[in-house]
Amino acid sequence: MKILLDISGADKGISIPITAAVNLVNNLGVKLCLVGKKDDIEKELNNLNKIDYLDRFEILECSEYITNNDEPVDAIKHKKDSNLVKAFDYLKQEEEPICFISSSNTGALMAGALLKLGRIKGIHRPALITLLPKVNGKEVIFLDTGANPEAREVSLIQYAVLGKIYARCMLKEENPKIGLLNIGAEEEKGTEELKRANKKLREIYNDEFIGNVEARYILNSEADIIVADGLMGNVALKALEGAVSTLKSALKNEFTSTFFGKIKGLLIKGSVKNMMKKFNYKEHDGAVLLGVKKPVIKVHGSSNVKTYEVALIQAKRLLESDIINKISEEFVKEEEESLEE
Amino acid sequence: MKILLDISGADKGISIPITAAVNLVNNLGVKLCLVGKKDDIEKELNNLNKIDYLDRFEILECSEYITNNDEPVDAIKHKKDSNLVKAFDYLKQEEEPICFISSSNTGALMAGALLKLGRIKGIHRPALITLLPKVNGKEVIFLDTGANPEAREVSLIQYAVLGKIYARCMLKEENPKIGLLNIGAEEEKGTEELKRANKKLREIYNDEFIGNVEARYILNSEADIIVADGLMGNVALKALEGAVSTLKSALKNEFTSTFFGKIKGLLIKGSVKNMMKKFNYKEHDGAVLLGVKKPVIKVHGSSNVKTYEVALIQAKRLLESDIINKISEEFVKEEEESLEE
Repeated sequence: MKILLDISGADKGISIPITAAVNLVNNLGVKLCLVGKKDDIEKELNNLNKIDYLDRFEILECSEYITNNDEPVDAIKHKKDSNLVKAFDYLKQEEEPICFISSSNTGALMAGALLKLGRIKGIHRPALITLLPKVNGKEVIFLDTGANPEAREVSLIQYAVLGKIYARCMLKEENPKIGLLNIGAEEEKGTEELKRANKKLREIYNDEFIGNVEARYILNSEADIIVADGLMGNVALKALEGAVSTLKSALKNEFTSTFFGKIKGLLIKGSVKNMMKKFNYKEHDGAVLLGVKKPVIKVHGSSNVKTYEVALIQAKRLLESDIINKISEEFVKEEEESLEE
Repeated sequence: MKILLDISGADKGISIPITAAVNLVNNLGVKLCLVGKKDDIEKELNNLNKIDYLDRFEILECSEYITNNDEPVDAIKHKKDSNLVKAFDYLKQEEEPICFISSSNTGALMAGALLKLGRIKGIHRPALITLLPKVNGKEVIFLDTGANPEAREVSLIQYAVLGKIYARCMLKEENPKIGLLNIGAEEEKGTEELKRANKKLREIYNDEFIGNVEARYILNSEADIIVADGLMGNVALKALEGAVSTLKSALKNEFTSTFFGKIKGLLIKGSVKNMMKKFNYKEHDGAVLLGVKKPVIKVHGSSNVKTYEVALIQAKRLLESDIINKISEEFVKEEEESLEE
């Protein structure tokens, strides 16, 4: 098993992913391959006083990085010696189980995965899966959070299947409840595609399908999986993240703006930290692109060392769970069944 | 000037809107007309020991209420003696400036406004406007938050115009900055309609248009107006509300689950209240449906007396600002200009 780790894309620079890799390389039990300019990697290991770690990593060299300013498809087509193109070419030819972690340009990551790796047979559109912490301490699998701007009914149904496989492989949840993100609880709400998807999910899953879920209830619905159109899923996810970070800083302000406030702030520090930890997206799993031939984990540009460490462990668990083969089997089976009908 | 107030639709019953009406009727300086069953109104005034207030209100009687279980268009077409049908018929024929406040079935409210009142000439689709508190203490005008499930480019452009008129009339903001809700900041993001709308807004507004705004930044972008497709706007709004209420209860839990926590909770009560007040949607203006021939304010079913009081004051300000005529003039002007071209 091997993990390919892109060192570019973190807002705070390459020291973030490289520090995480250094921290875990001895104990992860999975080969680690760093993707980046060799000079950059050596310089950073030197900075960290870990130059002796150089031979513990495999290195996949590139001569340039794709950035957020690049047009995604153009970059994948023309920047042949870039981090992403090199990584996807490597992923494609690698025969042992392998997972890719990157916080590079999301569009380019999606484009590269589609154009270079390709979809698993039977998959209409891949989906970006995000795990969100629920109020009850459990987690909800939320997809698609932005791999595709719009979803047809057929994709929404496939997202439910992908969600179920992820639940089984990663959360040991054998009978997850499924919900559909929509603008109202009633089944006739939303666009035509959403109405049809609601009907179809009811037919297929019966009581396992809890119906439409409004964005208001994402963090405290009964659903273990919430299926969404990529545009709506992305907007909901970002609005949740935005609200959490806004409230966090407002709370901080409230307790640092006056002397008396500061004292109160000191008293409650632990409690608020406890609570915020639950909703700290930096300590939760990265977003996983599923439906392409190798798993790809997208971490936020704003990630810290902890986020990358969590992503590395998540990558290992994805590989151990053999999720790609499980998806292939499921979709081959589905195709055979639909041919028989 | 007159305000028509629907007494149905509040989760906690008719006492909520009626109490608000009783509290303000003497000082609002606008005629108040209650829409509901006469029995219900009398009984509630009796409960409140305010039966002598009966003649301070006009009463528009109905024999039934449209509820959230009703199919919107069906209800408007067939429940001829219901709160909403009676109210819209009244609004239509009333010649003095009038505004309608209701927390009834949102779909039926939209359908009634469209079918009974009709659109202002030149308006393609009306929009639901929601004011959100920003981190900097100002407010952002957010529309459409769910009047139409999908928006074409032409509607998104009109929403910007409606937003500008609302900013001028209600917030005295003459040069508002406009943003477009999208899944990324780059102008080539999102659906074809969003890409075209981005381009067109840039052409029309130049530097007044700050470009795409991600849902993450709704509460702290530079924009005074954020224009959105109704599906995305609705999802973003509900996700924000959901996150705020979730964090609020998590915070409460944190401070009531242990004895030591309770003591700390007492100490910080005021500070947290201060902060949460900023994000308390119950103390902010109701959502306004603009683009139909009379203004309609939709308040949440979960509203309390304070929310209704705020809505009553907001209704008065809408009437004073003469917003309907300002919209008519603007859209007549736009149509004339486009005919001249």
